[in-house]
Amino acid sequence: MKESNRLFSRKAAKFLRMQSSSDVHPCGFAALRLCVKSFFCFCVSIFVWQIASAQTWIWYPGDYEIWLSNQMQNRRTEKSTFFPVFWKMDNHYVLMDFHKVFDLKEAEEVNIYAEGIYNVKLDGKPLEGMPPTITVPAGKHKINVKVFCQASVPSVYIKGKTIVSDGTWLTTFEDKEWIDETGKTSDISATQWLNAGYWNFNDPKQPPSAFKLPVIPIQAAGKEVNGNSILLDFGKETFGFIKLHGLKGKGKLSVYYGESKEEALSREHTETFDKLEVNNMNPSDQVMSLSKAFRYVNIIREGNAQFDEVSMLYEYADLPDKGSFTCSDTLINKIYDVAKYTLHLSTREFFVDGIKRDRWIWSGDAYQSYLMNYYLMNDNATVTRTMYALRGKDPVTSHINTIMDYTFYWFLGIYDYYLYSGDKTFIQQNYGRMKSLMDYVLGRRNKNGLLEGLPGDWIFIDWAAGLSKKGEVSFEQLLFTRSLETMAICAEIVNDAENAGQYKTMAAGLRKKLFDLYWNEQKQALVHSRVEGKQTDNVTRYANMFSIFFDYFTDAQKQAVKRSVLLNDSIQKIVTPYMRFYELEALCAMGEQGYVLKEMKDYWGGMLKLGATSFWEEYNPSKKGVEHYAMYGREFGKSLCHAWGASPIYLMGKYYLGVKPTSAGYAMYEVVPNLGGLQWMQGKVPTPGGEIDLYVSNKQIKITGAGGTGIVKFKSKSKPICKEGQVTDKRNGAYELLVEKGKSYVVNYKL
Amino acid sequence: MKESNRLFSRKAAKFLRMQSSSDVHPCGFAALRLCVKSFFCFCVSIFVWQIASAQTWIWYPGDYEIWLSNQMQNRRTEKSTFFPVFWKMDNHYVLMDFHKVFDLKEAEEVNIYAEGIYNVKLDGKPLEGMPPTITVPAGKHKINVKVFCQASVPSVYIKGKTIVSDGTWLTTFEDKEWIDETGKTSDISATQWLNAGYWNFNDPKQPPSAFKLPVIPIQAAGKEVNGNSILLDFGKETFGFIKLHGLKGKGKLSVYYGESKEEALSREHTETFDKLEVNNMNPSDQVMSLSKAFRYVNIIREGNAQFDEVSMLYEYADLPDKGSFTCSDTLINKIYDVAKYTLHLSTREFFVDGIKRDRWIWSGDAYQSYLMNYYLMNDNATVTRTMYALRGKDPVTSHINTIMDYTFYWFLGIYDYYLYSGDKTFIQQNYGRMKSLMDYVLGRRNKNGLLEGLPGDWIFIDWAAGLSKKGEVSFEQLLFTRSLETMAICAEIVNDAENAGQYKTMAAGLRKKLFDLYWNEQKQALVHSRVEGKQTDNVTRYANMFSIFFDYFTDAQKQAVKRSVLLNDSIQKIVTPYMRFYELEALCAMGEQGYVLKEMKDYWGGMLKLGATSFWEEYNPSKKGVEHYAMYGREFGKSLCHAWGASPIYLMGKYYLGVKPTSAGYAMYEVVPNLGGLQWMQGKVPTPGGEIDLYVSNKQIKITGAGGTGIVKFKSKSKPICKEGQVTDKRNGAYELLVEKGKSYVVNYKL
Repeated sequence: MKESNRLFSRKAAKFLRMQSSSDVHPCGFAALRLCVKSFFCFCVSIFVWQIASAQTWIWYPGDYEIWLSNQMQNRRTEKSTFFPVFWKMDNHYVLMDFHKVFDLKEAEEVNIYAEGIYNVKLDGKPLEGMPPTITVPAGKHKINVKVFCQASVPSVYIKGKTIVSDGTWLTTFEDKEWIDETGKTSDISATQWLNAGYWNFNDPKQPPSAFKLPVIPIQAAGKEVNGNSILLDFGKETFGFIKLHGLKGKGKLSVYYGESKEEALSREHTETFDKLEVNNMNPSDQVMSLSKAFRYVNIIREGNAQFDEVSMLYEYADLPDKGSFTCSDTLINKIYDVAKYTLHLSTREFFVDGIKRDRWIWSGDAYQSYLMNYYLMNDNATVTRTMYALRGKDPVTSHINTIMDYTFYWFLGIYDYYLYSGDKTFIQQNYGRMKSLMDYVLGRRNKNGLLEGLPGDWIFIDWAAGLSKKGEVSFEQLLFTRSLETMAICAEIVNDAENAGQYKTMAAGLRKKLFDLYWNEQKQALVHSRVEGKQTDNVTRYANMFSIFFDYFTDAQKQAVKRSVLLNDSIQKIVTPYMRFYELEALCAMGEQGYVLKEMKDYWGGMLKLGATSFWEEYNPSKKGVEHYAMYGREFGKSLCHAWGASPIYLMGKYYLGVKPTSAGYAMYEVVPNLGGLQWMQGKVPTPGGEIDLYVSNKQIKITGAGGTGIVKFKSKSKPICKEGQVTDKRNGAYELLVEKGKSYVVNYKL
Repeated sequence: MKESNRLFSRKAAKFLRMQSSSDVHPCGFAALRLCVKSFFCFCVSIFVWQIASAQTWIWYPGDYEIWLSNQMQNRRTEKSTFFPVFWKMDNHYVLMDFHKVFDLKEAEEVNIYAEGIYNVKLDGKPLEGMPPTITVPAGKHKINVKVFCQASVPSVYIKGKTIVSDGTWLTTFEDKEWIDETGKTSDISATQWLNAGYWNFNDPKQPPSAFKLPVIPIQAAGKEVNGNSILLDFGKETFGFIKLHGLKGKGKLSVYYGESKEEALSREHTETFDKLEVNNMNPSDQVMSLSKAFRYVNIIREGNAQFDEVSMLYEYADLPDKGSFTCSDTLINKIYDVAKYTLHLSTREFFVDGIKRDRWIWSGDAYQSYLMNYYLMNDNATVTRTMYALRGKDPVTSHINTIMDYTFYWFLGIYDYYLYSGDKTFIQQNYGRMKSLMDYVLGRRNKNGLLEGLPGDWIFIDWAAGLSKKGEVSFEQLLFTRSLETMAICAEIVNDAENAGQYKTMAAGLRKKLFDLYWNEQKQALVHSRVEGKQTDNVTRYANMFSIFFDYFTDAQKQAVKRSVLLNDSIQKIVTPYMRFYELEALCAMGEQGYVLKEMKDYWGGMLKLGATSFWEEYNPSKKGVEHYAMYGREFGKSLCHAWGASPIYLMGKYYLGVKPTSAGYAMYEVVPNLGGLQWMQGKVPTPGGEIDLYVSNKQIKITGAGGTGIVKFKSKSKPICKEGQVTDKRNGAYELLVEKGKSYVVNYKL
């Protein structure tokens, strides 16, 4: 890869010529054997724009993300009690060196801002004190800024005419520069310098530690007063700070939050509440100290506590939608809109699972948010920030979130992120952490080279009654295989050829073993697990559906598994939108968009019928009334706004509009529209180089390309007509249209 | 060892009977083959008092120590510029769980204080809010307190009638307690609970983060005014904050600090200074923000800035002397006193190297401070705090302080600490960190199984002109061997039998290799190094002198090395008190106290003659005048108060008074007085069970025992007489007196 990076333009041109439709698998993951070649040749041109930005606050990559996640995750309360995570929370390095070499045509003045105390070295020589401004002479000069900060993350903001802090600065937590007894300074290091981390803190007066999500005031939509109880309805699921206006008198106020009316009114069983002592001579406004999830708020007054009115400050991550979807089916449009709102609510400083509960970052949940994000906000920073926060720091002392599967989703998320963003810098910054996490996993294999739950491991898979976690579970081996494949690819990206080879060998071995050990010819399926060296009798959907869109099955196996598992009602049904995501993805990957559309309308439409204004953590159509709100043995334990409920965003974008990258950062992409019975659909899919704009009906396809080169693949009963480009006949009614950067095309065809 | 701990009293009695004088080597380190047996059988009774203390603030062991060291080490400035370390500074865990199970006769109210936000669980059930007081019912109950704190270390202080926070509480940074979808809480962990860390913060209103060293005001001893320069002399080397009284007017003040008068007056070359803008209408006092090392302060006024007088706030660690030494030689007494002052000045929050420079914690320097400490303040907390700070956290990314030898001194320091203190808890708390540091070292061996400098390694050994660090240096292999021996011992203490065996085997193999590869029969010495597989021609003192008091040499080798190396003037001389420490120790270990006394008077007496009020980083008698102050290519680069200059404290206590523990925590100890030509000496040596009080002349020995059982070993030309105890004749004029706990003895004899 070293060479291909250096010789980018020639190789890239060659690759474009080589690229043929048969090289890329229709599912989300390009088959591994192609990945190394097709995936990463284009990274150079695409990721460069991401680090060459305006001056901004910079830090050691991952450190601010970990710090911020500590702040966010520790805001969770349950029944007003602090409710923290039960895994290791990491911390930032307190001492950090940043440097860059500049070649100046003329001397320039440079302003330096830092979080923490700092020193500045010019060409290795310290300048006096803690200078707010330095002058760098013309010529080639190296600037080092070294910062100590304990309470928050050491970070700097540097601004001159040409000297500015950005992601091209290098940083380390151990510079190993030492002086000998004669005064000679040496750098004895094998110091690992990484590109600095940054976000969008471009104002010197707004240091990273000051960041807060924005808020906007919102009024309640309804109010019911009943004795000393005031019930407010904000019209839909929301998140923010309750504000009491004109608070006065002496007494107590209890604020009960409810995602449902029943929860807000229950008092005893409500999951979150605030209690206030009021003793105000003069009326004043009071905002609750913590933001909460709710639609309803029930305020109980005791004593003489009074207030004029109640509003809220809606707290949100300000991420505009770049993707969109509308179609001829109004229910699908409604589902898509509520999914969007669900994803936005649960996209905060990080991708969290749910906004009432757990308000934590869970790798399996976040993984789905990444994928949805690529089709809606396409915000790289929230993805990488979430992945940094999840990974934390070395040493690895447990699986991510303590869950074995969640470790693997973290690897898979990196695979996808690179594919969708082309951001090579992130891979370079993270490769060390990927390697040490994989070392941890490899160190936990049993004598068969497989993983089973050891003390401290949580085998999650899904919330499903009676699901066995015993022995060697096929689903875990499958994710493990995919993770090893990801390691092989990333090792190549960072030119670690030796390990790339080893990971590849391990991945291939494990993939073979997966089929040797779990495939049951009689059942025509992968069985759920092995216990004491023997296949169990149980077949579940998990490993089978993933093997479809991972392209691990042969075509014959796929068709067999569709019948024997996916469309087989005797196999335990999935009751979480979490695993429905993958179940429907597997069916879409096999062209069952029509069937999936119906399922979607039933399942997500079912929640809407019950009054959902955001999608739930779990939905079991067989339940009734308030039963729907219960979970974890608690009456209102269920989260009614859970990110994993928003998967229609992903499915519509990837499998109906049919857009997906086939090489890193959408340098190459594919558009395989599938109406699934809709009369028409239209939408946008964001890419690093702009939006792909698409309209599809059964007689017309209109597309405007984004930054890379796309191929529209479609079938037509008539010979397609396109004035703007060349349609290639791929035989048997299949056609392809090459979409060039930024160009618009209209294809008239007949579905 | 498990069994021996359980059956402590019987085993201990048996051991006492078995213990004979020939089992213990006269040098500080008992030979390894004896250690496991003789070292650790007594730990149980001795360390228990250390963790069963009054209620106190507790934290995760090592975390506060790391946090505090970050604060302290980042106070260093050079020429007013922030001057941080060049290695990784670690950080605390931000989220911590503490628990303990209590069995109460009656219900009790318990007050809870914390640094950070917290929750409290009683028998696994969370209590509402963040309760400052809880009531624990009678019976057996488990209390958990979980704390999040970002800026400082999560810590708690708990006080009820019987429920109090102390070192018996257990703590972890990942409790892995999770809840399933039915609401069942499980602890799936293999959680490693450690005994909580603590110090002496026994006041709930004084949380750990508020700690500051105490200060007392001190007036200057002299003043010289010369134009706008005011030179103050504080009479001796000191440390603290300069205070300007009645500061007024408008102008500038520059405060130049000098360990010598020349430094304070030099302005251009002074190592530390403060600059102030003054704009005071009304006179006010101003204390400099950072404490500094100095004897002289030169204040330069510019403009109309004025002040009435200058004093200082002397900043110190409040550690009383428990050990003492006086003798018939006034120069030795003076040397001892200045050594004491030197050690006190450089014993701050941690053992630092020097107070002007570097004000950092260096493992090799600290190692000597530990040893001196055992004979003066005997403060365990400063030792363990320093070792925690040095070790930092996993992952290990470099040698301690980046120096290979300094990694090994860290292991050796643990060996000594356990011997002198008997504190088994510290070993248990640290064993994980010991193991991972040793893993790092083992991973860096070359194909010969030896260590040589890899990129990022600093091979220090000593400040010595032209000293080669190339290839496989014998001194490093020697320290490596000793460290492996320490690992074997500590593995046994924590019942890690498998690794104990492996470390033992590795240590034995390396020790053999050391002699096979480096011993030169012709030179009668270990050579300095091997380069490209061949012995170099060079002989240095380092490996040879350590092999004496490590007892690695045969008696014949020792005698040969004394002639061929130690007393051989053609071998490069040592010019730092740092290595003179070991050189003189080696000679003392061979009974050369008379020679060493003369050397001490020459070398340390030489510094006193030059006006030293504390001992220096380096002293080369061949230099003249201000040459003495220069180092590192800077005119005043040398530190004139360096902990490693204080070794007479250790030598007088261990080799003249002759007191040392022979099993952990002074359960057994040895007293082998050696006057070395003095007419008399007297002093105290602190132990965990009180002070051993000793007077020795050439006709009388008076001793009062401490907590353990001691054996006084001495020679006499006459039959010794002791009324209080039984003197055993060991033949050839050698005698032994058994000293029981707390008892006093007078022995009349003839030297």
